[in-house]
Amino acid sequence: MIIQLKKDITEQERENILEQLQLLDITPQPVKTNFKEYIVGIVKKEFDIRQIGNMKGIADIHRVSDSYKMVSKKWKLHNTIIDLGDGIKIGNDELAIMSGPCSIESEKQIESVVDHLLKNNVKIMRGGVFKPRSSPYSFRGMGIDGLKMFYKHCSENGIKVISEVMQVSQVEEMLDYVDIFQVGARNSQNFNLLDVLGQVDKPVMIKRGISGTIDELLYSAEYVFSNGNEKILLCERGIRTFERAARNTLDLSAVPILKDKTHLPVIVDPSHGVGIRKFVPTMALAGVMSGADGVIMEIHETPEKAFSDGQQSLYYQQAEKLYKELRQTKELVNSF
Amino acid sequence: MIIQLKKDITEQERENILEQLQLLDITPQPVKTNFKEYIVGIVKKEFDIRQIGNMKGIADIHRVSDSYKMVSKKWKLHNTIIDLGDGIKIGNDELAIMSGPCSIESEKQIESVVDHLLKNNVKIMRGGVFKPRSSPYSFRGMGIDGLKMFYKHCSENGIKVISEVMQVSQVEEMLDYVDIFQVGARNSQNFNLLDVLGQVDKPVMIKRGISGTIDELLYSAEYVFSNGNEKILLCERGIRTFERAARNTLDLSAVPILKDKTHLPVIVDPSHGVGIRKFVPTMALAGVMSGADGVIMEIHETPEKAFSDGQQSLYYQQAEKLYKELRQTKELVNSF
Amino acid sequence: MIIQLKKDITEQERENILEQLQLLDITPQPVKTNFKEYIVGIVKKEFDIRQIGNMKGIADIHRVSDSYKMVSKKWKLHNTIIDLGDGIKIGNDELAIMSGPCSIESEKQIESVVDHLLKNNVKIMRGGVFKPRSSPYSFRGMGIDGLKMFYKHCSENGIKVISEVMQVSQVEEMLDYVDIFQVGARNSQNFNLLDVLGQVDKPVMIKRGISGTIDELLYSAEYVFSNGNEKILLCERGIRTFERAARNTLDLSAVPILKDKTHLPVIVDPSHGVGIRKFVPTMALAGVMSGADGVIMEIHETPEKAFSDGQQSLYYQQAEKLYKELRQTKELVNSF
Amino acid sequence: MIIQLKKDITEQERENILEQLQLLDITPQPVKTNFKEYIVGIVKKEFDIRQIGNMKGIADIHRVSDSYKMVSKKWKLHNTIIDLGDGIKIGNDELAIMSGPCSIESEKQIESVVDHLLKNNVKIMRGGVFKPRSSPYSFRGMGIDGLKMFYKHCSENGIKVISEVMQVSQVEEMLDYVDIFQVGARNSQNFNLLDVLGQVDKPVMIKRGISGTIDELLYSAEYVFSNGNEKILLCERGIRTFERAARNTLDLSAVPILKDKTHLPVIVDPSHGVGIRKFVPTMALAGVMSGADGVIMEIHETPEKAFSDGQQSLYYQQAEKLYKELRQTKELVNSF
Repeated sequence: MIIQLKKDITEQERENILEQLQLLDITPQPVKTNFKEYIVGIVKKEFDIRQIGNMKGIADIHRVSDSYKMVSKKWKLHNTIIDLGDGIKIGNDELAIMSGPCSIESEKQIESVVDHLLKNNVKIMRGGVFKPRSSPYSFRGMGIDGLKMFYKHCSENGIKVISEVMQVSQVEEMLDYVDIFQVGARNSQNFNLLDVLGQVDKPVMIKRGISGTIDELLYSAEYVFSNGNEKILLCERGIRTFERAARNTLDLSAVPILKDKTHLPVIVDPSHGVGIRKFVPTMALAGVMSGADGVIMEIHETPEKAFSDGQQSLYYQQAEKLYKELRQTKELVNSF
Repeated sequence: MIIQLKKDITEQERENILEQLQLLDITPQPVKTNFKEYIVGIVKKEFDIRQIGNMKGIADIHRVSDSYKMVSKKWKLHNTIIDLGDGIKIGNDELAIMSGPCSIESEKQIESVVDHLLKNNVKIMRGGVFKPRSSPYSFRGMGIDGLKMFYKHCSENGIKVISEVMQVSQVEEMLDYVDIFQVGARNSQNFNLLDVLGQVDKPVMIKRGISGTIDELLYSAEYVFSNGNEKILLCERGIRTFERAARNTLDLSAVPILKDKTHLPVIVDPSHGVGIRKFVPTMALAGVMSGADGVIMEIHETPEKAFSDGQQSLYYQQAEKLYKELRQTKELVNSF
Repeated sequence: MIIQLKKDITEQERENILEQLQLLDITPQPVKTNFKEYIVGIVKKEFDIRQIGNMKGIADIHRVSDSYKMVSKKWKLHNTIIDLGDGIKIGNDELAIMSGPCSIESEKQIESVVDHLLKNNVKIMRGGVFKPRSSPYSFRGMGIDGLKMFYKHCSENGIKVISEVMQVSQVEEMLDYVDIFQVGARNSQNFNLLDVLGQVDKPVMIKRGISGTIDELLYSAEYVFSNGNEKILLCERGIRTFERAARNTLDLSAVPILKDKTHLPVIVDPSHGVGIRKFVPTMALAGVMSGADGVIMEIHETPEKAFSDGQQSLYYQQAEKLYKELRQTKELVNSF
Repeated sequence: MIIQLKKDITEQERENILEQLQLLDITPQPVKTNFKEYIVGIVKKEFDIRQIGNMKGIADIHRVSDSYKMVSKKWKLHNTIIDLGDGIKIGNDELAIMSGPCSIESEKQIESVVDHLLKNNVKIMRGGVFKPRSSPYSFRGMGIDGLKMFYKHCSENGIKVISEVMQVSQVEEMLDYVDIFQVGARNSQNFNLLDVLGQVDKPVMIKRGISGTIDELLYSAEYVFSNGNEKILLCERGIRTFERAARNTLDLSAVPILKDKTHLPVIVDPSHGVGIRKFVPTMALAGVMSGADGVIMEIHETPEKAFSDGQQSLYYQQAEKLYKELRQTKELVNSF
C-alpha cells in the first residue's frame, strides 16, 4: 500500500497515521523523494482501506499487490517523465537518443563526438570514465578528470552527460559532472550504491543485470525510489543465455513487459545487447518498435582504434543514418 | 565447397569431376534438389579451386567456409523466395502473415477464421492437428481428418495452409493437405524427420529448438536442403532462458543474424515467443522491424475457450489492428 | 488419481468403476502395462475418494497431486527395479555401470570393448549405431547391421546392450537386438517415439532434453508408462547453460530431486555432462554420491581415433580405475 | 609471464629488469603481496624467455598463457593453503567445514550455534550481518554491532568467522572482526571492492556470480591477488539456469575445472546451490566428491523461524549427521 501525504501535513496527522498503521499491523516505510512524501505500508493481513484512507493529511492512497511498490504502475498511472533541463526530456513522445563512445579517451575525441551529436541534433552523450573490466590488466578509464573534461565540453554545447558510476565514493565526486548516473549491469544489485543514488537529486539509469530478471530490475529501482529519488530510468542491455552468435541476447520483450509493470521510462542498449556492429542498427530500430522511450548506443570515429568495445561501436556515418530511421520509427509507433 | 552442375551435364563429365575430387581428397556429397543439382565437397586440405572450376559440366563453383553449406549466404547471394502458388510468395518485399488458431478444433472454427482472414487479406492460415504436448493427458489434436477439413476450406478460398508434422509417417499422409510443413521446436533436431522432408516438394518451415542455437537451426535446414528440398523457411519462436516474466525469450537478434548467414526467409512467431496476449502485437511489430520476412501468430474467436494456447491467442479485433500496423512497419523497413 | 485394478477384475466391475468415474466428472485413462492394469483419473473437482475406493475390482487407489501420475513417487513408494535378466538389475543397492564407445565402429572394436568389460565385471555395454548429428555431413552410424553384430558379441558374453533409437520405424527392427532402448536428449520430447516405446516390453532409458526441465523429463516418462511400459530409466546428461568451460552443465541436483519425485531409477552420464575427458571420472563419482543408481560412460581403446566424442571418451586404464572407485563410492553412499 | 623477484633484490636490479621488459615491449604490472613480490608481464610478441630469466634479482620466471595470471595453476603448481591460525587451514587434506546461520539474529542464536559447532568439531562459523536483499523492505542484517558480538563469541571459543562484506566502506570496519571476508555472488564483479580487498591481509572468499562464468570468477580473484592479497578462496554456489525445480543449478563440474585451472582452494555452497533443505546434504556430499576443499552451509536451530533462508537451512541434527558423512567422503576422495 502506498500512502501519499499532503504537502501541508501536520506532525500530529503524521503521527495519527503511523499509529493507525500500527494498529492494523502494517509496517510503515517512510519515503521522502525529490518530489513528494509517502508512506509505503507492508501489509500482513486483510484490512479495510477506508480505515486509513479517510484520515487527515493523506493526499492519496493505493493498494499495490506487487512486492515492489513505488515503481509499480498500479498506483501511478501516468508515465514518469525525466526532465534533464533545457527542454530535454525522457519518457515523452520524443525518442531519447544517447550516443557516444564506450570510454572517454581524449579531449580530441570528445570534441569530435560533440560535433557529430550537434550536427545530428542528439542531446545526450554517453561515455565511461570508470570502466568495469573483467581483467584487472585492461584499461580502466580516465577517471574523474576525464569526466570533468567530458562534462565541460558537453555543457558548453547544450548536451547532457550520462556516465557510469561504479562505487559509493564516486557518487559525490561525479555529482556535478553528470546529468544522469548510469548503474552498469554488474552493479545492478549493488544495493549500497543504489541506496546512495536514492539520496541525490540526479536521474539514475539502472541497467538490467547480466542475468537479472525483470522483477529484480524493478526491485533495484525500488531501492533508489524508496531512498528518495524518483528520477529513474531502466535499461535493457541484453541477458546472458546459451546463444553464442551474439555477445548477449537482447531481450526486447522486456520492454513492453516493463512498460506494463512500471511508470518509469525504458531505454534499450543495442550495442551491448547484440555486441556486433553490423547488427546494432537493426536491433536499435526493433527496440524502438518494441516501445522503448530511448536508445543508448556506442559510436566511435575509428572503432578499430577504440580503447574498448570497438567491435560494437558504430561509425559516425552509420549512426547518422540510424538517428533518422529511429525517429521515423518512433513516429510510426506513436501513430499506432 | 559447392559445385553447381549444368543441367545438361553428361555422365562422363560427372565422373570426371568425382575423380578429380577424389584426387584432391575432397569428400563429395551429391545433392539433387527440386531446382538444381550440386555436389557439396567437404574439403580437408588446401587446393587450387581452378583445378575443379575449369572442368566441363560445372555451372558455378563456390568456396563456403561455414560448416553448413547449401543454406549459407556465402554461395547464394540472392535471397530465396518461397512460391506457394496463386501469387503468394514469402521472402520478397511483402510481409508474409500466417494467422490462425493453435489447434484446429472444429469445422465451425475453421469457417470463422477463414472468414476473418479473407476480410483482412491474409493469405496463409496456421492450425495444428497433431499437437506435441508435454503431458500425455492433454488434447493431442484432431489428426488427419481435421487437416483434410482445414485444407478443404482454405483451398476453396485461396488460402494456403501451414500445419505441424510430428513424425515421419505423417509426411506422406499430410502431403496433399498442406502448403507448408511446419517442424516444431521440439522436433528441430529430429534428423530423420528432416531427412524425409528433404525428399518432398513442399516448403518446410523449421522452428528453432527450445534451446537451439542459431547454428543448429542452420544445420537442421542443411539436412532438408542436402536431401533435395530447397524450399525452407526458418522461424524464431523464443528460446528458454532464466527469465520467467514471459513464456520464452523471443530472440529478435536471431533475425538479422540469420539474414546475414543464410539466403532463407526468416519468420517470427511472437505468440510462442512471448506467450502473453497483451505483449504479442508489440513483439510482432518489433519482429518485422528486426527484418523478418513474415510473422506467424495465433488468433482465436474466443481465446478463453481455446483448446490450447488461449492465453497467447489474439482476439480477431486485435489481430485486425495488428495486420495493418505490421504492413505499415514492413513498408517503413523497406524504405530504409 | 491412480486406480490399480485387480488381476481378476470382471468386465462388470470395470464398467461399474468407469460409470462411477463419469458421475464424479473424472476423465479415465486406462493404462495396461507389462505388469498391471490401472485407470488414471484426471480429476476436475473435489470428491470423496471412498466413493471409488470401496468398489469391487480395485486393488489399490491413490491420490496423486502431481500432474504426471504413473511415474510419481506419491503412489508407488517402492523404487522401481529394472530386471535385465541373468541377475542384472538396475535400481537396487548395486551400482549399474554402462560403458562403451560413443559409436559402434567395427567388429574388432566391439571385441576389444567386450573384453575390457568382462575383465572389469561391467555388465552393460553402450554403443550407438544410429547417431544424431548436428551436421548432415558427419558420420551417422553403422545402422542396424552394426547393432546386430554388437548384440551378438554381447549376448554371447552375458553382457546387456543399450543403444539409441532415433525414430519410430527403428523400434521394431532394433527390438531383438537391444536390452535397453536409449532415447537421446534431442528426442526427449519426441512424443510419437515415446508412445511407441510404451508399447514394447523392453526397458527404455530417457535422457533429459538439452534444455529440458526435470518436470518435462517426468512427463516424457509418463508417455512411456501410460502407453503400457513400466520399465523406464531416467538419465541426467547435462543441460545447456551460458557456461562454456564445459560442453554442458551436469545438473547433479537433478538426481536427488528426481529420486524424490519418482520411483524410477536415475542414471548419470558424465561423458556428455562435462564433455572433457579429464573431468569425466570426477563427475561420475560425484554423480554416484548424488544418489544415482547408475552411470553411463564413453570409453575407447584409442579415443584420439574415435569416430565421434573422442575428446570425452576415457582410456581403458582410466575406466578401470574409475570402476573401482565408483563401486567404493556407492558402498559409502549405501552406508549413510 | 610472471617474474618472481628475490627478497633481497636491489633497486638497480629492479630497474634493469623493468628496462629490459620495455625493450621487449612487455607491459609490467608490479604486484607486491602479503608473501612475495612479482612483476606480471603482459606480453605482446614472441621473445626468448632467457633474455629475462638470466637477470639478477629474479627468483623464478614462468610463462602463463591464460589471460588471468597470478591465480593460474600454470606457474604455481602447489595448491594454496589458507592458514587461519590456531592450526586451522583450508586447502590441505582435511575438509574445511563452514557452518552457521544465514543471518546473525541475536546473541542467543550465536551462543547456540557456537555450542553446536564445538560439539561437532567444526572450526569456522558463517553468518551475515550485511545482507544483500532483492527488496529494500526485507531484513538487511544486524550490521557491525552484530558482527562484533558474533566475533567475540567465536574468538573466545577458537572458532573462525566468515562474513559477507558488501561495500568498500565496510572493509575497514569489519577488518578486526572477521577471519575471512566473503564476497557475495552479486558482488562477484564489484571490482572496486575486490581492489580494496586485495590490499588487506585477510583471506577473501569470492562467490561465483549468479551467472558468472568460471573464467570471470578467476578474473575476480586476479583483482584481489594483483592488488596484493594471495589469500583467496573460490566458491561455487549455483548458477542461474532455466530449471525451476531448485533455487539455482549447483554446477559441480566447476569444482574440478577450477582445481585444474587455479591453485586456489574451492569451496562448495550447497545451501544456496540447491536452496531446498532436503536436498542440501546430498549436494554437500557430491560437492566433496567433486573435489571441493570445503563446504559452507546454512544451519538454524529452528529454520522455520529464521529471518532469512529458512527453507534451505539444516536442523542441527541433520547437520551433525552430515558433518560425519562429509568427513568420511573426504577420506574416500583422499584415498583415490
